[in-house]
Amino acid sequence: MRVIGVDPGLRRTGWGVIETSGSRVRHVANGVCESRGTDLATRLLSLFEQLTEVVEAQAPEMAAVEHTFVNKDAAGTLKLGQARAVALLVPARAGLAVAEYAPNAVKKAVVGVGHAAKAQVEHMVRLQLPGAKLAGPDATDALAIALCHAFHARAGGKLEAALAAAGASR
Amino acid sequence: MRVIGVDPGLRRTGWGVIETSGSRVRHVANGVCESRGTDLATRLLSLFEQLTEVVEAQAPEMAAVEHTFVNKDAAGTLKLGQARAVALLVPARAGLAVAEYAPNAVKKAVVGVGHAAKAQVEHMVRLQLPGAKLAGPDATDALAIALCHAFHARAGGKLEAALAAAGASR
Repeated sequence: MRVIGVDPGLRRTGWGVIETSGSRVRHVANGVCESRGTDLATRLLSLFEQLTEVVEAQAPEMAAVEHTFVNKDAAGTLKLGQARAVALLVPARAGLAVAEYAPNAVKKAVVGVGHAAKAQVEHMVRLQLPGAKLAGPDATDALAIALCHAFHARAGGKLEAALAAAGASR
Repeated sequence: MRVIGVDPGLRRTGWGVIETSGSRVRHVANGVCESRGTDLATRLLSLFEQLTEVVEAQAPEMAAVEHTFVNKDAAGTLKLGQARAVALLVPARAGLAVAEYAPNAVKKAVVGVGHAAKAQVEHMVRLQLPGAKLAGPDATDALAIALCHAFHARAGGKLEAALAAAGASR
């Protein structure tokens, strides 16, 4: 299964693609879309077009996006919402199911605790995906989101298999 | 000049199209896109697709979107940001310039004062666009935004003409 993780931001939207087969995970690619243009509509369009190119080139089968609430100020939250819309829209347009994970869920899945520091997350991403050249903190976060989704999907699959086995033995 | 005004909302996004020629304004069409689906990505995609159809069918030359800050809560502001992104993206993808106006600027242009009540705005929209059947409050607001943009564009045009005339007489 090929998973794209997206860490949305109006200036920089990170993305990371991994591939899982059974319990194995490998890095495919990661990068950052930087918005260009002066007005908001142009910047959103620029993110939209870059992320569309990434999804077309990498052909993921599932997408996962971080579900953040920024409480600092209304203007910042509005901007984040606009960038998140692009991160959700692009894979949905490509026909992918889009999962959303809270930052704590991502940290818990990748590091084991919900309040891990950025450096710990990066360390675990590097351990899980050896050899991956990280394109920056936003791309690292995006890979962590993809890993979180892969872990959840795997756990879900195991549960389904266990339930099917239990059903068959009854 | 054909102008589309958009009043973004995650549940309902209103739109209204007017046509101006000189100082005359006429109503073309108005309506509401209602988002369908349970998860956020699907709802945003549904708004995106409906608004894209409207822009293709109505072929506006300019777009104007309300620039709102909702201060009630972070979750509400995030939702609004996501809907606004769709309202900005769709006309930008169609190659239109997208203007943004604060709600007070819209009221001031349409009613004459920045703190007008909803009913006053509706009254003035009906007066300016006689015979228009309004598809609801969101569509009415969208027409008000389109009117605001037409007034600003006209004033800008007059200023340019006056400057050109002043330049020519020197």
